[in-house]
Amino acid sequence: MHARTAQERWEELSQRPLLALALVFAVAYAVPIVDTSAGHTVTAACTVVEWGVWGAFATDYLVRLALTSDRRTFVRTHWLDLCAVVLPLVAELRLLRLVSTLLLLGRRARMATQIQVTTYVAGVVVGLLMFGSLAVLSVERDSPNGNIRTLGDALWWSFTTMTTVGYGDHAPTTGMGRIIAVGLMLSGIALLGVVTANIAAWFIERFEKDDVEERAQTAAILALTEEVRALRAEVAELRERPPVER
Amino acid sequence: MHARTAQERWEELSQRPLLALALVFAVAYAVPIVDTSAGHTVTAACTVVEWGVWGAFATDYLVRLALTSDRRTFVRTHWLDLCAVVLPLVAELRLLRLVSTLLLLGRRARMATQIQVTTYVAGVVVGLLMFGSLAVLSVERDSPNGNIRTLGDALWWSFTTMTTVGYGDHAPTTGMGRIIAVGLMLSGIALLGVVTANIAAWFIERFEKDDVEERAQTAAILALTEEVRALRAEVAELRERPPVER
Amino acid sequence: MHARTAQERWEELSQRPLLALALVFAVAYAVPIVDTSAGHTVTAACTVVEWGVWGAFATDYLVRLALTSDRRTFVRTHWLDLCAVVLPLVAELRLLRLVSTLLLLGRRARMATQIQVTTYVAGVVVGLLMFGSLAVLSVERDSPNGNIRTLGDALWWSFTTMTTVGYGDHAPTTGMGRIIAVGLMLSGIALLGVVTANIAAWFIERFEKDDVEERAQTAAILALTEEVRALRAEVAELRERPPVER
Amino acid sequence: MHARTAQERWEELSQRPLLALALVFAVAYAVPIVDTSAGHTVTAACTVVEWGVWGAFATDYLVRLALTSDRRTFVRTHWLDLCAVVLPLVAELRLLRLVSTLLLLGRRARMATQIQVTTYVAGVVVGLLMFGSLAVLSVERDSPNGNIRTLGDALWWSFTTMTTVGYGDHAPTTGMGRIIAVGLMLSGIALLGVVTANIAAWFIERFEKDDVEERAQTAAILALTEEVRALRAEVAELRERPPVER
Repeated sequence: MHARTAQERWEELSQRPLLALALVFAVAYAVPIVDTSAGHTVTAACTVVEWGVWGAFATDYLVRLALTSDRRTFVRTHWLDLCAVVLPLVAELRLLRLVSTLLLLGRRARMATQIQVTTYVAGVVVGLLMFGSLAVLSVERDSPNGNIRTLGDALWWSFTTMTTVGYGDHAPTTGMGRIIAVGLMLSGIALLGVVTANIAAWFIERFEKDDVEERAQTAAILALTEEVRALRAEVAELRERPPVER
Repeated sequence: MHARTAQERWEELSQRPLLALALVFAVAYAVPIVDTSAGHTVTAACTVVEWGVWGAFATDYLVRLALTSDRRTFVRTHWLDLCAVVLPLVAELRLLRLVSTLLLLGRRARMATQIQVTTYVAGVVVGLLMFGSLAVLSVERDSPNGNIRTLGDALWWSFTTMTTVGYGDHAPTTGMGRIIAVGLMLSGIALLGVVTANIAAWFIERFEKDDVEERAQTAAILALTEEVRALRAEVAELRERPPVER
Repeated sequence: MHARTAQERWEELSQRPLLALALVFAVAYAVPIVDTSAGHTVTAACTVVEWGVWGAFATDYLVRLALTSDRRTFVRTHWLDLCAVVLPLVAELRLLRLVSTLLLLGRRARMATQIQVTTYVAGVVVGLLMFGSLAVLSVERDSPNGNIRTLGDALWWSFTTMTTVGYGDHAPTTGMGRIIAVGLMLSGIALLGVVTANIAAWFIERFEKDDVEERAQTAAILALTEEVRALRAEVAELRERPPVER
Repeated sequence: MHARTAQERWEELSQRPLLALALVFAVAYAVPIVDTSAGHTVTAACTVVEWGVWGAFATDYLVRLALTSDRRTFVRTHWLDLCAVVLPLVAELRLLRLVSTLLLLGRRARMATQIQVTTYVAGVVVGLLMFGSLAVLSVERDSPNGNIRTLGDALWWSFTTMTTVGYGDHAPTTGMGRIIAVGLMLSGIALLGVVTANIAAWFIERFEKDDVEERAQTAAILALTEEVRALRAEVAELRERPPVER
């Protein structure tokens, strides 16, 4: 079995464990933000878990790189994966680790059918809502003019932002909070696009009427085939005709 | 006549009465919220009517279950119906009864054409606007910081939410009010998707220009058929030729 | 020439004059709202012009009714036109006259191509923005808590509403103002749908790749036709063959 | 080589330099707005650069006009280019020079594939966000009631406007600021349309199921071709038959 199959097999095998690790990361990310009374030990443990998940994703990247046949092409076509692995090393930021985990998870998804794409999008939307709420909460809670101070407010704000409703009763006031907000807004627009495209594709597939022309064509081709078959029978008969009897 | 037809006949027969009962439910749900001066008797009567409608939908579920040939499959594929029937029994909540009635009504709809789908969506949107306004009004009216205190404000807020305009002059402040709001926002996005998809499907169907290629094909097939027909005539003539005259 | 052609000819002839009258109506509607210092004479003159335009549209309806062959069908299929003509007689409201004029104008539009539909939608959007601004201004100006008091504010508010941005710096406070706002919101959703559908139809038409299959089919049919033509030539030669030379 | 090719060659050659000049213009436009402490010399230098870029675009227009074969048609079909060149001469406004540069840049874009269209749209969106922020900042900074006073606020406001979220925590108060805002809103709607249309086209192309019918047709045509080929072989054999052996 050649290298490419080995890489594919690895990707198939590692998909579920990495998804599970991403969920572990989600919990480790959420705990210190939600539970403000958490002691130093808990926070430290969560940081360790986060780095552990990052390590698993980094290992996955290296294994895939080792198993691939053409490493140069792999690095070039997977530069986003490389960034997501290297970036948290450069800047010491929890948010960056969050973004890179989401990125790495997304890059691994295989989408074959419309239902899978839609499921994936729904999962991403829920994930973005959760992580967006937590990230904004951790940033805005300490802002002097901030108005997002509880998890409930953060979740509510995420929903009003992602659906582009934007009441304005809660809005981020810090630079970082606003960058997260822009991410949520763009996700909201993408979500709207996917929902609309889904319905449109379903409508067009189910109610399209121009099949009429195509069905007429098929009928015409079948009629023509009948005609040719009859012709062939006639020629066969001609050939079988006894030699001119005289 | 076998079981499946009996089930279908029942569903056809019961569709209109159940729709009427849902309207009765709507009135029974609305009265105690809109008419705050309503006495104890009226409120009690409305609760009785609500439970009555729930009973009718539960009976309908049982009848369909009895008429189906494969009960196991029915329960598995209609688990949402089962939830909608059972849930109001577990938690004593008016809102839950509302949601389950809407769900049960929706599950019964048969959609065969694009116009039916659009009509159904329009009906659901109007229903959600009505029920959403009432539900938010009943929840927010007693909130100390609430700003949705009249039916007019609630309706206005529903519209600004569902169209994702979101002025922010009125916004829910309680947890329950915000959950209802999220439901309205998601419905609004779905509504936008259906409207867009409808127009897109209509545009693509009506103004598509790639029929040109298909019409060229049909012409080519017809020309070919002519050719074959002429060939057949020629062969026939060949066969009819008098034996070599000498 | 039979009745139906006469009706069509009338509709073609009257389209431009009615469009011009609608513009006159627009001016007569706008003047008393924009120019608050307008004297009694000007306001009275504008009301006369409005009724005059209404009269022209009513006459147009009657002429079309007279020219049609099947009056019963015409009334049934054009019930919206009838409503638009009769309603301003029942209730004495400027807004109703406005709505009915817009309705009557829209019912007359003939849409044959995608560009015509898009032009029509663009025209309707501009019209709704203008009329919506004026209508809201006239209603909100006298509201005690109103915050839309100048034409500039009204136009700005119309744009933020129709694009579903909804800052909330200006929002209607009266019942009538909110009804107009709901109209603008729904138009905004329709506008978004038309824009998206246009781009989608253009994308699908221009970049569709499944023509490959169709072009392959056309090639196959042409090759087959060549084959049959060669066959026919062969048969013709067979027939022309000199009788068995011996 | 005839005139049309010369024009095309010029447009190809000049595309990159003009894009670079547009970026220079962007910097010259941004500097005096962002750096409020910039001295008179810097501001003057920036104005000179802006006029220089305008001059380059005007020269480009004249060269294309000189190289075209049919000048009358060129002027008529490129009237928007003419406006963009002439307008900054008529009114002395920085904003007008900005709009005309964006227009001239856009008119030069060649869009052949869906990816190119999407890249172009993404570039335009980023450009509009940048320029919109700067333009609003320069206008609103000096407004007495203005609430957009820093570049950060301006960028944040641009994003909330273009995604149609519209929190309302920042909103333009001057007439010019609102005109810019309307431009951003309309761009936002177009952006949403392009995103949705892209996803829809991708969905329809990738998951469409009506190829089944077309593949059946191809199979039918191939079977028919086989049939005709067999017929032809039979006729050939008939012809090759030795003359009646007796």
